[in-house]
Amino acid sequence: MFYHIKELQYEAKPCKPDPVMARKMQEILGGQFGEISVALQYLFQGWNTRGNEKYRDLLMDTGTEELAHIEMISTMIARLLDGVEPTTLDEAAKDPLIAAILGGSNPQHLIVSGLGAAPKDSNGVPWNAGYIAASGNLLADFRANLNAESQGRLQVARLYYETNDPGVHDMFSWLLARDTMHQNQWVAAIKELEAQENIVVPSTFPKELERREVSHTLFNFSRGNESAQGRWAHGPSMDEEGVFNYVEHPVPFAPAPVLRPAPPTIFDTPPNMM
Amino acid sequence: MFYHIKELQYEAKPCKPDPVMARKMQEILGGQFGEISVALQYLFQGWNTRGNEKYRDLLMDTGTEELAHIEMISTMIARLLDGVEPTTLDEAAKDPLIAAILGGSNPQHLIVSGLGAAPKDSNGVPWNAGYIAASGNLLADFRANLNAESQGRLQVARLYYETNDPGVHDMFSWLLARDTMHQNQWVAAIKELEAQENIVVPSTFPKELERREVSHTLFNFSRGNESAQGRWAHGPSMDEEGVFNYVEHPVPFAPAPVLRPAPPTIFDTPPNMM
Amino acid sequence: MFYHIKELQYEAKPCKPDPVMARKMQEILGGQFGEISVALQYLFQGWNTRGNEKYRDLLMDTGTEELAHIEMISTMIARLLDGVEPTTLDEAAKDPLIAAILGGSNPQHLIVSGLGAAPKDSNGVPWNAGYIAASGNLLADFRANLNAESQGRLQVARLYYETNDPGVHDMFSWLLARDTMHQNQWVAAIKELEAQENIVVPSTFPKELERREVSHTLFNFSRGNESAQGRWAHGPSMDEEGVFNYVEHPVPFAPAPVLRPAPPTIFDTPPNMM
Amino acid sequence: MFYHIKELQYEAKPCKPDPVMARKMQEILGGQFGEISVALQYLFQGWNTRGNEKYRDLLMDTGTEELAHIEMISTMIARLLDGVEPTTLDEAAKDPLIAAILGGSNPQHLIVSGLGAAPKDSNGVPWNAGYIAASGNLLADFRANLNAESQGRLQVARLYYETNDPGVHDMFSWLLARDTMHQNQWVAAIKELEAQENIVVPSTFPKELERREVSHTLFNFSRGNESAQGRWAHGPSMDEEGVFNYVEHPVPFAPAPVLRPAPPTIFDTPPNMM
Amino acid sequence: MFYHIKELQYEAKPCKPDPVMARKMQEILGGQFGEISVALQYLFQGWNTRGNEKYRDLLMDTGTEELAHIEMISTMIARLLDGVEPTTLDEAAKDPLIAAILGGSNPQHLIVSGLGAAPKDSNGVPWNAGYIAASGNLLADFRANLNAESQGRLQVARLYYETNDPGVHDMFSWLLARDTMHQNQWVAAIKELEAQENIVVPSTFPKELERREVSHTLFNFSRGNESAQGRWAHGPSMDEEGVFNYVEHPVPFAPAPVLRPAPPTIFDTPPNMM
Amino acid sequence: MFYHIKELQYEAKPCKPDPVMARKMQEILGGQFGEISVALQYLFQGWNTRGNEKYRDLLMDTGTEELAHIEMISTMIARLLDGVEPTTLDEAAKDPLIAAILGGSNPQHLIVSGLGAAPKDSNGVPWNAGYIAASGNLLADFRANLNAESQGRLQVARLYYETNDPGVHDMFSWLLARDTMHQNQWVAAIKELEAQENIVVPSTFPKELERREVSHTLFNFSRGNESAQGRWAHGPSMDEEGVFNYVEHPVPFAPAPVLRPAPPTIFDTPPNMM
Repeated sequence: MFYHIKELQYEAKPCKPDPVMARKMQEILGGQFGEISVALQYLFQGWNTRGNEKYRDLLMDTGTEELAHIEMISTMIARLLDGVEPTTLDEAAKDPLIAAILGGSNPQHLIVSGLGAAPKDSNGVPWNAGYIAASGNLLADFRANLNAESQGRLQVARLYYETNDPGVHDMFSWLLARDTMHQNQWVAAIKELEAQENIVVPSTFPKELERREVSHTLFNFSRGNESAQGRWAHGPSMDEEGVFNYVEHPVPFAPAPVLRPAPPTIFDTPPNMM
Repeated sequence: MFYHIKELQYEAKPCKPDPVMARKMQEILGGQFGEISVALQYLFQGWNTRGNEKYRDLLMDTGTEELAHIEMISTMIARLLDGVEPTTLDEAAKDPLIAAILGGSNPQHLIVSGLGAAPKDSNGVPWNAGYIAASGNLLADFRANLNAESQGRLQVARLYYETNDPGVHDMFSWLLARDTMHQNQWVAAIKELEAQENIVVPSTFPKELERREVSHTLFNFSRGNESAQGRWAHGPSMDEEGVFNYVEHPVPFAPAPVLRPAPPTIFDTPPNMM
Repeated sequence: MFYHIKELQYEAKPCKPDPVMARKMQEILGGQFGEISVALQYLFQGWNTRGNEKYRDLLMDTGTEELAHIEMISTMIARLLDGVEPTTLDEAAKDPLIAAILGGSNPQHLIVSGLGAAPKDSNGVPWNAGYIAASGNLLADFRANLNAESQGRLQVARLYYETNDPGVHDMFSWLLARDTMHQNQWVAAIKELEAQENIVVPSTFPKELERREVSHTLFNFSRGNESAQGRWAHGPSMDEEGVFNYVEHPVPFAPAPVLRPAPPTIFDTPPNMM
Repeated sequence: MFYHIKELQYEAKPCKPDPVMARKMQEILGGQFGEISVALQYLFQGWNTRGNEKYRDLLMDTGTEELAHIEMISTMIARLLDGVEPTTLDEAAKDPLIAAILGGSNPQHLIVSGLGAAPKDSNGVPWNAGYIAASGNLLADFRANLNAESQGRLQVARLYYETNDPGVHDMFSWLLARDTMHQNQWVAAIKELEAQENIVVPSTFPKELERREVSHTLFNFSRGNESAQGRWAHGPSMDEEGVFNYVEHPVPFAPAPVLRPAPPTIFDTPPNMM
Repeated sequence: MFYHIKELQYEAKPCKPDPVMARKMQEILGGQFGEISVALQYLFQGWNTRGNEKYRDLLMDTGTEELAHIEMISTMIARLLDGVEPTTLDEAAKDPLIAAILGGSNPQHLIVSGLGAAPKDSNGVPWNAGYIAASGNLLADFRANLNAESQGRLQVARLYYETNDPGVHDMFSWLLARDTMHQNQWVAAIKELEAQENIVVPSTFPKELERREVSHTLFNFSRGNESAQGRWAHGPSMDEEGVFNYVEHPVPFAPAPVLRPAPPTIFDTPPNMM
Repeated sequence: MFYHIKELQYEAKPCKPDPVMARKMQEILGGQFGEISVALQYLFQGWNTRGNEKYRDLLMDTGTEELAHIEMISTMIARLLDGVEPTTLDEAAKDPLIAAILGGSNPQHLIVSGLGAAPKDSNGVPWNAGYIAASGNLLADFRANLNAESQGRLQVARLYYETNDPGVHDMFSWLLARDTMHQNQWVAAIKELEAQENIVVPSTFPKELERREVSHTLFNFSRGNESAQGRWAHGPSMDEEGVFNYVEHPVPFAPAPVLRPAPPTIFDTPPNMM
């Protein structure tokens, strides 16, 4: 169960409105790796955790914090839109600032959300749950989390230089620090699980049921062998269960398939058409 | 540029048709972590790589191999659908096997794709590019890749026990082994980059611009402190740049926001409604 | 900012597993009118509210409660999936119960989420933000909310009869009651605003700018005049600003449009093709 | 069955082209609450109505009118795009008007639709059927309709001030008036049904099966009690079946859930990982 | 502008309910090539036609007819769902017919649409406007139309054998005939335009601006030359402007690309990482 | 199985960066008719072909070539983004070129993909598999292919005039020529199949099961008879199996439907509401 308090986790107040930044900031709210994604990803992972309360608690802690980040960014976007009014093309043609705003802002911020934030990305694509993962396997999922925090912090870092507003920079300094922690924590959790499980997910699948002779092989499918220089092409494998090897000219292991014709009631093209 | 040969990388031939397995197998073809996802994710990452040819080559090698996996699974699905014919409810009501097939198969395999595979998941949801990432930052992206291979191998492992067909098992043994390698290789590549860059993405963002006092802090937002037992709550941080600390009772750092009213031409609810 | 406690708002424990009910219950979690929709709809409306703290608080209260409902239903789904194992078609063909489960359950519950809930509907379609509204106009949005609670309670009522599990019924009895309250509260809030604003949204748009002669007219575009019997076809209009009238044979007010040809560089079909 | 006449319901002719307005106007054509939404929503509700011919007729009347609105707006968009030609960045850099158009218009209007309207919103997101509702319960659905007309009229009102073209204003004056009527008519229909059914949907679900003690309770989940001032927190409930009450400090009714481990073939993280 | 009459274009009445057929029939209503697709595709093409009234009229005629087909199929689906009631898993386990229905029907038909049709496909995926095309170039669009009618009739033909209900067969006999006509008419219209424009769309693009030496060349990118046997590999080209030729071993025309590093503020991986 | 070589099929190098063109060019990469669509459409059709090796080979040849086109356009987009840096609104307001870029470029090219291409269209909508068709019926599918190549070449032709960069023009000259060939080859393949199968898909469905009396009838549903002037309204039908006829005043063939009430547990609105 959740409680809300009206205070913000951290200040989210720009020095002045900027509807173009409002549009761009939607990316870290409702984009693929925005705050909605991490909040719901962690919460669903937490709710699906079966019997590892320490990890479940960590997931719920962090997912709940991300709800506060959704709130902060939504508040920031609303303030970046303070006082925005409808604009005609004629006005835009006369004033470069208005022209820049007309082109760079999101028309839905005015028409649809009435100067509020929306659960969409910087191009107006609605957030969808195909962005997130909660598999029941924590090592897999913590890797999803580490990826999400890496992509998310990268986006904030890029956005940082798209504004010189000290208020926006201040909020970004908070988000960047929290993403630093979150990357650290998922790395820590991953290391713990890898120490117990080995690195290959899922670790409990019987090895004899996989084709072990190609479990540590790099096939060189892109002609030229720059990739042979990598750690992945020689030496002991990272799972310490084999030795990496490199196949310069990979060959197929099975013949070309020929499919049987479909029954007539399927109305596929009959075989042996001229 | 690409060349195709008609031979398969590995055999994809079931011992007998099974339209229910055909449906389920769509998950690892056109699902969030199916072969279309990894193929296009690696290829786009490769095409976007700026000046690190070794990694670009590795991405192109693996992306090209994944195209062969799309081909193998598509072929397997088509063969699992061999000879399937239209069924009426009356027939299903009389024969438990037909009833099981009616319920467990995908009606589009017959009506839409004419006994062929489709670029959709096991529930018929079309694949979309919101599943994949290619950010230009290789450490972030290799983490996306490690996640994708972890989730993907997990799904194949689960599917393994949903059939007892030796032909399907044989193809799975190949895919499981290749996913073992791919997890190994992304771990290797990640370690290489982490060794040069530190673990926090992006590593070159100036530290003084983030709020360092909360860069290694775990906020306990889910009451109860099971999460305090983790490595992430004490000791040196994983990035070796601080010490983890745990805040049992996190407090807000900013007051409750109050937004300014919108201009009248926005037609938001005016302030001070009763 | 949010806090989480580990206790549930209300019990979410079935008497026994039922993977078919687990699938169906996804509708009220991640469907168009599921708990994710209401939670995010109310929270975004709250964050976007400009200067009406009473309504903002009501929105935050209710949105926060809906987060607890997401949690309850996710927990219920996980428990309905307790102990589910992979199944082959052969097994299903022999046992009607297994056949029924095979057909009626969601394959992703096993393959993708590992016996956990997913932010998707009962057909596996991912939740997306196109389902929700937050316009900045509270009267419009409270109508969206009343609709969402009506559709949502309707779906729970229908689901009630798809199970005879007392534990599931118990949780439904809670959700039904809360939806009763939420319908009541949005009706109350709507009446308050309508009393101040009149019923037509937005109420502050200048009336002289609309074509008043058709502001209270029902055009009979579906031949036959059953619709003339309704309150909307005669008597004073609901906004008390006119009188309803009924046009039995509506006619067009403008000629057929003819569009100008496109410039040659657009490569539309040139005009006057034979 | 439908017939089409080539005349427009109302004139849709701008005084001069404006590709930026063409883009923005897509919102009320193919956006969440655009004309495609209301047309298909009413028609599907009509086709699904079981045995209430008066309401079915009203739905078909209005749905059919909305088809004419799709036509009018599509025509208006095509005319706003009259004569638009491809533009290079160099040209845009020299002329503020061209720069404003380059930024504010939709590139697909030229590249994809050849100066025609598209069934997409103002950001180019394709219309999808997840926007609409047709539940078979008319009171629920009429509330969906009232919401749609409220959001739709709000958007037209906002767009009104984004242009000073008298031709566009003229068409908007029609749409605003029709939305006034449609809000009026759904209010009328809702009142009729509420008078017979009470306000809680569905009205026929047995009350004894819901947890009546919380059917009229507001839980204060967002700290601070501004929401206690509302009509929803005291006095008789709107359904006249209870008395509103306000719980300032809501508590959970169930313990923290602990989920059972998954079977080994699911490959979730085993319990009791360190 | 449109008018509706309450009569159906053709009868849509099954002999008895069949919720499994109701689910499957959704494919030709709300699937990629269902009636919603052709209706909106033709209408948007018609509204976007600039100055060729004969074709515009044909498009409006056919688009309007397709609205009647949406109506017929929606009616049929509602009747196939007549009297369907909620079912528990226990009941399904006891009766093979109920088990077959449980598995083969769409749970949303009961929970969401209340025994009505929905604008979704046979797997419950909502219709979206990414399915349709209206480019302003009629030859391109008529080819889209011919494709849609071919795929659509194919699906009806396949569905025909999934039922033995004479009422359903009767409606299908109508739809199949209409699709026969529609394929005929688009072929006729295509031939007319091809006779005037040549076959390559767009026909008015200056030929000297394309790389004519590869305008009639088949590159053999899939090893083995079965494709050399086709008409496309030899003889005069279909546009009568060249001669087909076949390149057995295609080679690249450009070197491998090497991208320049990104500026530091983009935070891509720096070049020359080890 | 596939092999990749690092050389490009054709040069993809602009003379100078242009982030606005980079955005627009996304349409032909990740849009409805972009290169991802044709690549995956042809490959899936090839993999689903049952027993017509000549056509399968042609599909694999062309699908594999389209992979090279994805690569070329992705490379071109990356180069059009060379050196792009973050921009503030203040800068844009001062320099018309920067304003034009701010408005006309895609913010995700900087924030999300780090100056790389993305599998999305020119408005940032992710590619999805609902764009493509692979039905198992080759005549239907080749028509889909001819449509895709027609729409695709049309879009490139339109884009040609949106730039004056000789490098971009050079790549377009290649794509235009290849699309010329691909239109030619699908026309050739279609003619071959039509010669054997007649023009109506599917050709093997028993004619006596369709309502032949309306198989060659044009219903004039849009008042006015411009469409009567077409070839489709008179003379022998294109399938040579009938004579076209024109019905000026089409009438319905079935009465208005009245649906039966739903069972009480469905909670639809009961019949005979006032």
